[in-house]
Amino acid sequence: MTSISDYSTSNKIPNILIIGVGGVGSIIAYGLDYNKKSNVSILVRSDYTKVVNSGYTIDSCDYGFIKNWKPNCRIFPDIQSSTSLKPYDYIIIATKNLPDIINFEKIINPIVDEKKTTIILFQNGFGNEVPYLQNYPNNIILSGISHIGSHNINTFITQTQKDKSFISYFYNKNIPLQIQNLKTNHFISIYSNEKNDVNYFPDAQYYRYRKLVYNASLNTVCALTGVDTGRLEFFGGLDKISIPIMYEIIGIAKADNVELPSDVINSVVHSDDGDYFQPSMLVDVKKGNPMELEVILGNLLRKAKYLNVDCPKLSFLYDLLQIVQFRLKENRCLIPPLPEKRPIYKEKFYS
Amino acid sequence: MTSISDYSTSNKIPNILIIGVGGVGSIIAYGLDYNKKSNVSILVRSDYTKVVNSGYTIDSCDYGFIKNWKPNCRIFPDIQSSTSLKPYDYIIIATKNLPDIINFEKIINPIVDEKKTTIILFQNGFGNEVPYLQNYPNNIILSGISHIGSHNINTFITQTQKDKSFISYFYNKNIPLQIQNLKTNHFISIYSNEKNDVNYFPDAQYYRYRKLVYNASLNTVCALTGVDTGRLEFFGGLDKISIPIMYEIIGIAKADNVELPSDVINSVVHSDDGDYFQPSMLVDVKKGNPMELEVILGNLLRKAKYLNVDCPKLSFLYDLLQIVQFRLKENRCLIPPLPEKRPIYKEKFYS
Repeated sequence: MTSISDYSTSNKIPNILIIGVGGVGSIIAYGLDYNKKSNVSILVRSDYTKVVNSGYTIDSCDYGFIKNWKPNCRIFPDIQSSTSLKPYDYIIIATKNLPDIINFEKIINPIVDEKKTTIILFQNGFGNEVPYLQNYPNNIILSGISHIGSHNINTFITQTQKDKSFISYFYNKNIPLQIQNLKTNHFISIYSNEKNDVNYFPDAQYYRYRKLVYNASLNTVCALTGVDTGRLEFFGGLDKISIPIMYEIIGIAKADNVELPSDVINSVVHSDDGDYFQPSMLVDVKKGNPMELEVILGNLLRKAKYLNVDCPKLSFLYDLLQIVQFRLKENRCLIPPLPEKRPIYKEKFYS
Repeated sequence: MTSISDYSTSNKIPNILIIGVGGVGSIIAYGLDYNKKSNVSILVRSDYTKVVNSGYTIDSCDYGFIKNWKPNCRIFPDIQSSTSLKPYDYIIIATKNLPDIINFEKIINPIVDEKKTTIILFQNGFGNEVPYLQNYPNNIILSGISHIGSHNINTFITQTQKDKSFISYFYNKNIPLQIQNLKTNHFISIYSNEKNDVNYFPDAQYYRYRKLVYNASLNTVCALTGVDTGRLEFFGGLDKISIPIMYEIIGIAKADNVELPSDVINSVVHSDDGDYFQPSMLVDVKKGNPMELEVILGNLLRKAKYLNVDCPKLSFLYDLLQIVQFRLKENRCLIPPLPEKRPIYKEKFYS
């Protein structure tokens, strides 16, 4: 008989690795460390030397001001070195989610133990679990949705909004539901404390659709037009552009048997009340970084296609943002260089 | 009986004022001056003192290199001062066409003589004549479409592509057709020379629809996505975005009884062959200047609505670009300042 112990390492104290120590990942790592219920290691790439020498400075609305914080276990510069601490009970991925650029499900392969390792995706987007379930069909994959406000500038972490999160399992048909449920709650038990607000949520899909109502309609349109959500409203884009798009998203969810609440549009529209808020994709465009386009729009549209749902505005928006994404990738040398002189395709006839 | 003389001043030598001495207007002014068949004055705003002192330096593929050029007649700093030379046979408007910001049809009112003054709109766009025909129902309004490549940087004019243009009348139901036709040809006779390529074109609407197939599908999409026409093609936007939009434009023209040629899409697609060309609206966005959105998309969509033609992609594109236009206007202080703190409209319920 399958038991929960098949899905854990023999470590008495759970062994955790956090990949992606930005605004979100750093506070997750700190919170786990603070609880002293797990061995916490982090994987840090560009800031490695700095963090090994002096750790992070954290200015947190939840935990106060902490200087030179380092996790209780190890700091690794890459996946290869992190194999030394195998097996991991939990691998938390809290990086930007850019499957068109980097495939973490392949990168983490050397440190994932079949069944034993639970992978937690603390990331934006929709359909994020699909490549993980394909690569690790016998592992539990959890969904972490964070509502934190936090950023990391050169190892200085500024957390301005509470670490509020919702943890679910991404349904894996190969593993008894009860075990997926137990694992979700086990993780919550080692992560939750009196400072943060960690919640169990039974249905990952529902919550991710709910978050897309914001991300696919406001984050995307702000990124494309270059304005914050306040200006989008002032300039008439909320009523003319984003709300019609929200209806398309609600329609896809419905076709996927996810019934979003009747006030979802109202609460999404009011979610930045009082703020000229710049959503993440707009921030990316302004910084010249690639956007999380595929997990916010691409996967949703592939799902809509599969479900045979027509969504002309979302599709057109995706077409347009794909061009922007190419531009951002070209600027970061993430695509092959274009020919110096534009080629002429005379043989091509367009009609 | 109405005769052509009702539509001319008593000046033997036609009296011409050019408003907007940019890349296009400067070469028109120079060409007219070069022909010595008219008295050429120009209206210059920001560069006035500089031009009065030392004229323009012109590096022209048509006319060669000319230093310190000034027109044979007068240089005016504003409309008020230009009234001193009334009546004008021709007023040429070669400014950017931004009816959402400035209404030239009202500004030129003091220098337009009923019937006598012919107004020539050497500008991009569609439906440009409508406010002029409303304000000057008894004046002839001509259409000038320029294919020149030329720009003006601080009174230094660089013309890299031939001054090739098409002159038509905008049909005015209050004036005999023959007279509108004669006037069109009269202007061509004083403007055309062995260096430039000035053509009579019988149907202004046809030609303006033809030009919109480029401007409303490529110029707009490049402006919104931030890429040149070469990159748009490389990144897949030509097939997925711009060509479907061209079909919508062709459909509006057809409903307006304008049958565009069957190879129009092919020739538009190939019109920048070999160039990573940045169309004008993209250049405007990059410079932070407002775009000619209303005359390229707004007027076309108002026409489509009037004709009851559905064009979902053009409409959505217009909605998105209107947000960009607001952003550009805000940056140039052309709209009232927004409240410092974003207001909360709690009473507004969105569903």
